[in-house]
Amino acid sequence: MKPYKELTREELLELQSSLQAAYEEEKGKGLKLDMSRGKPGKEQLDLSMPMMNVLNGESDMNTEDGTDVRNYGILDGIPEAKKLFADMVGAKPSQVMVLGNSSLNIMYDCIARAELFGIMGNTPWSRLDKVKFLCPVPGYDRHFGVTQQFGIEMINIPMNEDGPDMDMVESYVNNDPAVKGIWCVPVFSNPGGVVYSDETVRRFANLKPAAPDFRIFWDNAYGIHYLYDLRNDEEAGILNILEECEKAGNPDMVYQFCSTSKITFPGAGVAALSSSEENIADIKSKMKWQTIGPDKVNQLRHVRYFKDINGMKEHMKLHAAVIRPKFELVLNTLEKELGGLEIASWSKPLGGYFISFNATNGCAKAIVARCKEAGLVLTGAGAAFPYGIDPDDSNIRIAPTLPSKEELAVATNLFVTCVKLVTVEKLLSEK
Amino acid sequence: MKPYKELTREELLELQSSLQAAYEEEKGKGLKLDMSRGKPGKEQLDLSMPMMNVLNGESDMNTEDGTDVRNYGILDGIPEAKKLFADMVGAKPSQVMVLGNSSLNIMYDCIARAELFGIMGNTPWSRLDKVKFLCPVPGYDRHFGVTQQFGIEMINIPMNEDGPDMDMVESYVNNDPAVKGIWCVPVFSNPGGVVYSDETVRRFANLKPAAPDFRIFWDNAYGIHYLYDLRNDEEAGILNILEECEKAGNPDMVYQFCSTSKITFPGAGVAALSSSEENIADIKSKMKWQTIGPDKVNQLRHVRYFKDINGMKEHMKLHAAVIRPKFELVLNTLEKELGGLEIASWSKPLGGYFISFNATNGCAKAIVARCKEAGLVLTGAGAAFPYGIDPDDSNIRIAPTLPSKEELAVATNLFVTCVKLVTVEKLLSEK
Repeated sequence: MKPYKELTREELLELQSSLQAAYEEEKGKGLKLDMSRGKPGKEQLDLSMPMMNVLNGESDMNTEDGTDVRNYGILDGIPEAKKLFADMVGAKPSQVMVLGNSSLNIMYDCIARAELFGIMGNTPWSRLDKVKFLCPVPGYDRHFGVTQQFGIEMINIPMNEDGPDMDMVESYVNNDPAVKGIWCVPVFSNPGGVVYSDETVRRFANLKPAAPDFRIFWDNAYGIHYLYDLRNDEEAGILNILEECEKAGNPDMVYQFCSTSKITFPGAGVAALSSSEENIADIKSKMKWQTIGPDKVNQLRHVRYFKDINGMKEHMKLHAAVIRPKFELVLNTLEKELGGLEIASWSKPLGGYFISFNATNGCAKAIVARCKEAGLVLTGAGAAFPYGIDPDDSNIRIAPTLPSKEELAVATNLFVTCVKLVTVEKLLSEK
Repeated sequence: MKPYKELTREELLELQSSLQAAYEEEKGKGLKLDMSRGKPGKEQLDLSMPMMNVLNGESDMNTEDGTDVRNYGILDGIPEAKKLFADMVGAKPSQVMVLGNSSLNIMYDCIARAELFGIMGNTPWSRLDKVKFLCPVPGYDRHFGVTQQFGIEMINIPMNEDGPDMDMVESYVNNDPAVKGIWCVPVFSNPGGVVYSDETVRRFANLKPAAPDFRIFWDNAYGIHYLYDLRNDEEAGILNILEECEKAGNPDMVYQFCSTSKITFPGAGVAALSSSEENIADIKSKMKWQTIGPDKVNQLRHVRYFKDINGMKEHMKLHAAVIRPKFELVLNTLEKELGGLEIASWSKPLGGYFISFNATNGCAKAIVARCKEAGLVLTGAGAAFPYGIDPDDSNIRIAPTLPSKEELAVATNLFVTCVKLVTVEKLLSEK
C-alpha cells in the first residue's frame, strides 16, 4: 500500500468517496456493540462456572486454621487466601490483606485514608495545599478518575516501551514533596500492554522521594493474564517490586493491588492489597473502624477451586485460548488494512486486555464519533489521559474481549474504515 | 429475696464469703468463652446452608432484566435485590442501593464522603471547625468507633423506653448547625432492645435541623429480627421513616441501612442503603469513582434463595426458634438469681441480639473484670458509650446468641455470681 501522505489531492478525493460509501454500508448493518470497557466475554465467564459447585450446602466451611468463614471476623482475609494472593504477586502472606470484590475500591480507600487520616503519622493530604500524582499515559481511566475526584493534580508521564519515562519520574518524585503517588500497571499496562523492564522496576525501587508519604500505586491487574504460553523465564520477566524496594531501603514505598476480576468473575471475584508489614499494620489500624471483615465465604470458594497458584495459572490458559484469537483477529485486520499507510500505529500485546491504537494526531475523537454513529461504542477518545485530555488527540483503546468473534470482525472492519475516512478528511483539509 | 441494701454488715460479710467460694468454684471449671460480640451461633449459620445450593455450575446467571451478574456493571445492585431490600425496610426500589457485605462499611463510607466531598453541595465536614453527632446511649460501639475515628464530637442522648430523649434531640438538632448526624437503631436497639414509638419516629421526621446537611443514620439492623411470633400489627409497630420524612417535608434527612448479616451469614451477606432518590443520586455521583459495582452474584444467590420478603420472614422464624431459648435461659436466670435484690435491672427484649444489663452504679467494670478472670469475656464495660465511657459504670451488654445453651448456662451462673459479689463488695466498702 502506498502511504496516504504520498497521495495526490485527486487520489485522496477518490479514496474519500469510496470510503464514505463503505462507511454508509457498514452503518446500514445496524451494528449495536459496546466495546468501551475491558470486560470478559460470556465464554470466559463460563470458564469459572465450576467454581459455583465448590461450596454447597454440605461443605466444610472452616478455614485451614479452623475459623468458620460464615461468621464475623478476620479483617484481612483467611490464611489460605493470603497464601494464594501472595503467590500471585510474589509477596509473603504476612504482607497481604485479602479483601472484597474490587481492587479499584481498595485503591480508592488507600487514597481516602491518606486524605482523611494521613499515612503512617504524616499530615492528612486533605490538609495540604497541593497534592500531586504522576500519571503514566496512556493509562487506566479509572485510576485518573479517583485522583481527579480527590482534587489531586495529575501530571502526565510518557510511557516508553519498557515503562514510564523514569528520568521524569525521578525528577518529580525526588524533588517535589507535593508528589505523593504514581499510578502504575507494571505488567501488560492498560492500555499499552507494556511490561516494565528490570531497570524500570529497580529505578522505581531506588527512588528517593521528597515526600515521606510518597507511595507507588502498583496495580498488578494483569500479572498472570498472558495471551500466549510463555516460558517460565519470560513469565518471571517482571521484578518483584516489594523485594526490590526492601533491598533499596524503601520497604514502605509500594502499595500493590491485584484481583481475580478477570480470572473468575468481574465484581464477584476477590481483590487483595500487598505491601510491607508496617504499611499493612498502618492500614489495619484505620480499616478496623470501617468494616468487620471481607466476604470470607467467597475467599474460601476461590481457594478451594484453584487450590494454589498453579491451578490459577492453568485456568488463565483457558482464558488465553478464548481471547487470543480475538486479539489476533483485530491485529491481523489492522495490519492488513492499515499496514504501510503510515497513518497509525498500535501495540501488539502479549497479555492484558487492550490494544492501544495511535491514530494520526487530531483524529482520535473524530474516529470514535464515526464509530459511534455507526453503532460501535469505543472507550471515549482521551479517556486514557488525566482529565480526559489526550494532548495529541491520537490514542484509542481497543478492548477486544467482550464481543463474539463475529461481532468483533464486523466492528474491526468498521473501525478501520473510520480510521481511513477520518484521516483522509484530515489530509484533505490540510492540502 | 431480701434487697441487698437491707442487709447488715455482718450479713453482707457472710454473703461475700459464700459468693467468693462460689466464684472460686466457677473459676475452677476452666471456662473459656467469648461473648463479647453479637455473633450468631453455629446452629444459626447452618440454617442458611441451603442457600449455598441455590447457584451452581448450571445456574442461569442473569437477572430478571437479563443482566449477567458475573460481569462488571450496575453500581447500585440488581433489580430483584432492590425489590427485596426495599420490602425489608418499607422503601421503594428506586430509593435503594444494594451494595456489599457490610452495612457498617456503608455507614463509614457515607461519613467519609461527607467529610471529603460534602453532602449535596454542602461544605465537606473535614473543612469545618467542629462536627458533632448525637449518640443515644447505651448504643452500638462500632457506630461510636466510626465517629470517633473521624474526630467527630459525640454527645450522649439518654434512651427512654420509646426511643431517644426527643426533647434533647430536637434542642440540639434544631439549634446547633454543627450537629450533622445522629446514630439510631430504631428496632430492637443495640443493646437496649428498644423499639421506637410512632411519636418518636414522627418527632424525628419533623426535626428542623439547623444544618442543611444533617442526616439521621437509621441503622435498621434488626428490623425483622423477632424473637417471638408477633402479630402483623405488632410487626408493623415501627413507622416508616422514609415516608414520615417525606410527609414532613424532610425527604432527604435520612440514610437507612440494613443487611442480611444476621439473616444469612455475617460477612458473607448483603447490605443495603435506602434514602430519598435525591440522596441516592448524590451518593452515586461520588461512589461511581470508588467501585464498578458490588458482588451481584451474592445478591442473586440471596434473592433466589428467599424469593421475596415473606421467604425471608419465614427464615427469621427459624433463627428465633434457635435463639429464643438462649435469651430465655439468661432472662430466667437473671430473674431467679437477681430478682428482688434491687441491685440490677435488665431489658427483656422481643427481638434483636442483646440483653442490656444495668448493674449498681460503679460496678460494671469490676463485674466484667471478674468474669474475664474466670474465663468469660464480655463486651468491655463502657463499650456501649461514646469514647468507651459509661458515666455511671453500670451498663453491661449481654450477647447470648453465640454460645451453646450448655455454655450459656455456665456463663450466666458465673455472671450472676460476679454481679452479686462485686455489688456486695461495693456495699461493704460504703458501710
